Amino acid sequence: MTGGAEPRLGPGAEFERILSLVRVLGARASGVGDDCALLDIGGEVLATSVDLSIENVHFRRDWLTLQEIGWRAVAGALSDLAAMGATPDGILTGIAVPGDTAPADIDECTRGIRALLEQTGGSVLGGDLSSGPVWTISVTVLGRVLRPVLRSGAAVGDTLWVTGSLGGSRAALESFIAGQDPPPPSRERFARPLPRLAAGAWLAKHGAHAMIDLSDGLAGDIRHLAAASSVAARVDLARLPLHPGVLSMAEQVGEDPAAFAAQGGEDYELLVALPHDFPAPLVERFESETGVPITRIGQIEAGEGVELSLAGHPLTIAGYDHFR
Amino acid sequence: MTGGAEPRLGPGAEFERILSLVRVLGARASGVGDDCALLDIGGEVLATSVDLSIENVHFRRDWLTLQEIGWRAVAGALSDLAAMGATPDGILTGIAVPGDTAPADIDECTRGIRALLEQTGGSVLGGDLSSGPVWTISVTVLGRVLRPVLRSGAAVGDTLWVTGSLGGSRAALESFIAGQDPPPPSRERFARPLPRLAAGAWLAKHGAHAMIDLSDGLAGDIRHLAAASSVAARVDLARLPLHPGVLSMAEQVGEDPAAFAAQGGEDYELLVALPHDFPAPLVERFESETGVPITRIGQIEAGEGVELSLAGHPLTIAGYDHFR
Repeated sequence: MTGGAEPRLGPGAEFERILSLVRVLGARASGVGDDCALLDIGGEVLATSVDLSIENVHFRRDWLTLQEIGWRAVAGALSDLAAMGATPDGILTGIAVPGDTAPADIDECTRGIRALLEQTGGSVLGGDLSSGPVWTISVTVLGRVLRPVLRSGAAVGDTLWVTGSLGGSRAALESFIAGQDPPPPSRERFARPLPRLAAGAWLAKHGAHAMIDLSDGLAGDIRHLAAASSVAARVDLARLPLHPGVLSMAEQVGEDPAAFAAQGGEDYELLVALPHDFPAPLVERFESETGVPITRIGQIEAGEGVELSLAGHPLTIAGYDHFR
Repeated sequence: MTGGAEPRLGPGAEFERILSLVRVLGARASGVGDDCALLDIGGEVLATSVDLSIENVHFRRDWLTLQEIGWRAVAGALSDLAAMGATPDGILTGIAVPGDTAPADIDECTRGIRALLEQTGGSVLGGDLSSGPVWTISVTVLGRVLRPVLRSGAAVGDTLWVTGSLGGSRAALESFIAGQDPPPPSRERFARPLPRLAAGAWLAKHGAHAMIDLSDGLAGDIRHLAAASSVAARVDLARLPLHPGVLSMAEQVGEDPAAFAAQGGEDYELLVALPHDFPAPLVERFESETGVPITRIGQIEAGEGVELSLAGHPLTIAGYDHFR
């Protein structure tokens, strides 16, 4: 949409590579750098995004059922639509599996995709099926929105909020890594995340300034929002809504629970900047109409960069990086 | 678009798996089974499709440069737009590379993508970048068309045509497999195919009944067109326009050149059904306006199935199957 402008992203090897890629594309890159690419389609905007899920990078076969693998791959992609406030039309799936995979296994993964789409709306519009060395699922989402919410719209004075709760997915991940069975609520969050589509659409309709979905962790993703908006973000970690299960797992790995949650990827909650005069009764209406809690965690200030503080002390923590 | 109807596809393990997948999705599948998925967007139709390119399945690193790998991955996907008559808005790329890949290598692949888009129009609208065990490129194409040409529109009496020439890509492939350097024209066809976008748009505008791009080989792809249209197709292989380089390579592998070309995948030419009264002067105009030759190879008849004959004898040959 923005026609070849270089995206403003937070730090990290993955994002340096994306910037390099955009530089190489020159005028052949357009609008890269938000949760979704946007196309004007007569009155509405089409929002679209692609997400890769690769065995042993994004999931392990011994941690998840094939239904969960299918669900999770699509949930991560639909979450990008949620972050624009868009409603899904559907998805395209590119699935590669080892050549000796039983057809019933592909069906099983497909059942997980269907189960999620029954919750979110949208259908599978098309796809590609191939062999490959490991399970690989590429999901392209297509949705529509009247007024998309960009990462770049945050303004000085805005308040920062997150939907739901954070750290549940990481709590499950740390359990798996430690060879334990995650407690059921953490496992559910990791295995079958629910993209915040209704919440995102509601926030878009009610004037949210900027939004991003938390796929790489609050600590990393908030940097993209601040960089895209050319503002500074300040977060009080003591305010973070923690997923049940975070406390015990943070203790087990010896981290502060809020810092643990801020570094946890794949919660698929929304981080949203609301105008400073956003009315409190409207916040209550959001919660009653979407069934999703929303918590104020900080604010937007003049300047640049992100300050995450705990009990008044700034903390340096990183998001998840697929190239670290 | 067709809302949960089961697609009619030709035979092959890959297509059986796709049918099974559509059955599992039930009402959550919609419009699967043409070259592109279609969405109505106020007056126009959005056409979209996804293609996977996976190292050691779709290409080998020692056969192609990284620029060619990028070009080829995108060309195959854009060819699906050509088959609908659509004009590209752009693409989304999901690229996975081994963790130790030099950033310069990703840039090199991106240069190939840019070079193709400079030929075809369209830009990179967004993407995902990840690590993975092998080079994996998922390309989603987005384009628009006023009146898309489906696979299912062929009618009894239609004539069947192909653009350009066939077998060049397979000639290169057989050279590579034999450990030889392919002759430059064959190598070029394999490494840097040009999707027939202008040709497809022209044919859509001038009333083509049905179209499919030749990605898996004429012998296989024509079965999808016949099945989708509930008609029989009859092709005289002696009429096939052969790519230079087919003759010598067909001799080397001991096959009839036309049968060799009919089984060759990844030519990315278009197979098109034109109305029986399509005027000859219009065929000439197609060639002069698009610069692409078009050859009549057969016709549509009542019934079902496909007959490929050579010198009056029916031939049984198969298309390429990624699961064979």
